[in-house]
Amino acid sequence: MDNHLRETLLDSKSVFTGKMINLRVDNVQLPDGKKAAREVVEHPGAVAVVPVLPDGRIILVKQYRHPVGEVTWEVPAGKLDKKEDPEGCAYRELEEETGYKAKKMRKLTAFFTTPGFTNEVIHLYAAQDLAETSQKTDDDEFIDVLEVSRADAMWMIRSGEIKDAKSIIGILMAEELI
Amino acid sequence: MDNHLRETLLDSKSVFTGKMINLRVDNVQLPDGKKAAREVVEHPGAVAVVPVLPDGRIILVKQYRHPVGEVTWEVPAGKLDKKEDPEGCAYRELEEETGYKAKKMRKLTAFFTTPGFTNEVIHLYAAQDLAETSQKTDDDEFIDVLEVSRADAMWMIRSGEIKDAKSIIGILMAEELI
Repeated sequence: MDNHLRETLLDSKSVFTGKMINLRVDNVQLPDGKKAAREVVEHPGAVAVVPVLPDGRIILVKQYRHPVGEVTWEVPAGKLDKKEDPEGCAYRELEEETGYKAKKMRKLTAFFTTPGFTNEVIHLYAAQDLAETSQKTDDDEFIDVLEVSRADAMWMIRSGEIKDAKSIIGILMAEELI
Repeated sequence: MDNHLRETLLDSKSVFTGKMINLRVDNVQLPDGKKAAREVVEHPGAVAVVPVLPDGRIILVKQYRHPVGEVTWEVPAGKLDKKEDPEGCAYRELEEETGYKAKKMRKLTAFFTTPGFTNEVIHLYAAQDLAETSQKTDDDEFIDVLEVSRADAMWMIRSGEIKDAKSIIGILMAEELI
């Protein structure tokens, strides 16, 4: 099934090995027998968490994202450590970034951020039954925390104030599912 | 404003120049004065289009995505040519991938696919008033086309059958806004 769409790997060359990502260039055979090069950014995968307070407000974090040169509003997130369980990572990242510990973590979905050039998968959760502890960010993370009503979060999406894919999906799906 | 979060560029080194993406490694100064390396995938930006038929059905395309090794259901999309206007690109990609020409293109939002490591922006549209022409895919593109009800598309998101970020955002925002 779908064999008329599939590509076959011919060879693969590593171009870069980094701290967060690796890059390789693969040569593939197309369904019609022709050849093409495919640039692939390898990423370990990540989690994103929509933290929902008992009153329905959502916790957002604000941080500087160097690749886009902007400060962005996002839901808490972080990349998976080697062989880390996504749900465990979701509990950990939520507490580190926001200072809230969740009792309940509900999986919303898992999605590809941009499958045209990377294998990155984000596992998306809604966190509930939150209790305050303390924020513990990484050495190179500087994060502000804000609590907004769901209506305000929806407005921030519609107005373009929230423009991070995982955060838009998380807020829209939490709206749908919680 | 937000200066307590911002990073300052110290130096930048190009690592790879490709067909679709480039890669560079930047050294930055963190808000506390320490230094860190940032891996940045440069991408020209892209458009994605939710094509809505007069009866409310949505047009999806199925294609093989080598980086994730899977055939994926997505909304039509394509990367921007140099200095191309996003709306013009949306009209073009819709017709090339689906064989439908739109009279109306409504901007839903623009978002960062994964701002932790790339500057990629996707401009997202809903296309309406569609007239059938003919599919004209690129030489290395092999695409199947399917028309689904909005309810089916929502179910495909909830069940994880649609797991491409731009497509999830497009379908959820079209549901909201059209």
